[in-house]
Amino acid sequence: MDAHTTDTADTPPAPSEQETPWLTAREQRMWRAHLEVAKLLDYQLGRELQPHNLAINDYEILVVLSEAPDHRMRMTDLATATLQSKSRLSHQITRMENAGLVLRQECPGDRRGLYAHLTEQGWETMQRVAPDHVRSVRAHFIDRFTPEQLDAMYTALAPIADHLRSLRGRS
Amino acid sequence: MDAHTTDTADTPPAPSEQETPWLTAREQRMWRAHLEVAKLLDYQLGRELQPHNLAINDYEILVVLSEAPDHRMRMTDLATATLQSKSRLSHQITRMENAGLVLRQECPGDRRGLYAHLTEQGWETMQRVAPDHVRSVRAHFIDRFTPEQLDAMYTALAPIADHLRSLRGRS
Repeated sequence: MDAHTTDTADTPPAPSEQETPWLTAREQRMWRAHLEVAKLLDYQLGRELQPHNLAINDYEILVVLSEAPDHRMRMTDLATATLQSKSRLSHQITRMENAGLVLRQECPGDRRGLYAHLTEQGWETMQRVAPDHVRSVRAHFIDRFTPEQLDAMYTALAPIADHLRSLRGRS
Repeated sequence: MDAHTTDTADTPPAPSEQETPWLTAREQRMWRAHLEVAKLLDYQLGRELQPHNLAINDYEILVVLSEAPDHRMRMTDLATATLQSKSRLSHQITRMENAGLVLRQECPGDRRGLYAHLTEQGWETMQRVAPDHVRSVRAHFIDRFTPEQLDAMYTALAPIADHLRSLRGRS
């Protein structure tokens, strides 16, 4: 990794070192704050969903399906919408099916196949849980920004989300 | 959830609705941008660690241990530092032990017990992988902010990280 030393006075650093643009202190503190908030917020919101017997990923599925036409989506589209692998989604839908929240349905005449469909119970669960969840999101995140910070964060993050989504689409 | 329509002029809304402060459109778009960036960035950084046979959580453990005195930490402290449960950490350390990156050690005379210790191979792996990882973090996140945005993000996020850390500490 290092080495590649040349023996004359104007020795350039090894290419790998030369090209490693380590984070500055200001970049580092922001990067760590972002990582911490992302991780701790996920944990805290999950904790506050526990009394409802829902994991945070379950809640996300309920939201996405409740916003879809006829409360159903192709499994492949649901995997894309929730940014997870098909195999991981499949395990999760099995758990949620056992809890009565969703149903897998084959669509006759559609070879692209399997749908996840929100059940009546899934819909009611979402309706019941949403107010508490929104209160959690406000208390631990949204209400802690000024209106200016909120807009500035969106302006900074939206193009990054676009960039990352386009990379993901390619994979 | 809806209904509760008021038929007379001064009927108050149902308590649940009254108290549910739904996100405004501006709050909602920022909240979704944050969630997307957090999730997609985690995915992309993990993908770019794959050629090194490391998961993103493995890399984090290597970083934390490499910054610790004597390259070792109590398992309980490591769980706190990486914000994960002791049982989940234990599974992860077992995998990393099998890969030769860390060692579990009992500390004689210390009843608080088990340490995770970075091996020479773990240290070399971290050194080798770090430049690539930093490049990924820059390309997909840090370099996409202006210096002003970087500082503004830190100013907004740091107190939220403090808040969430204090909640976590209480659990």
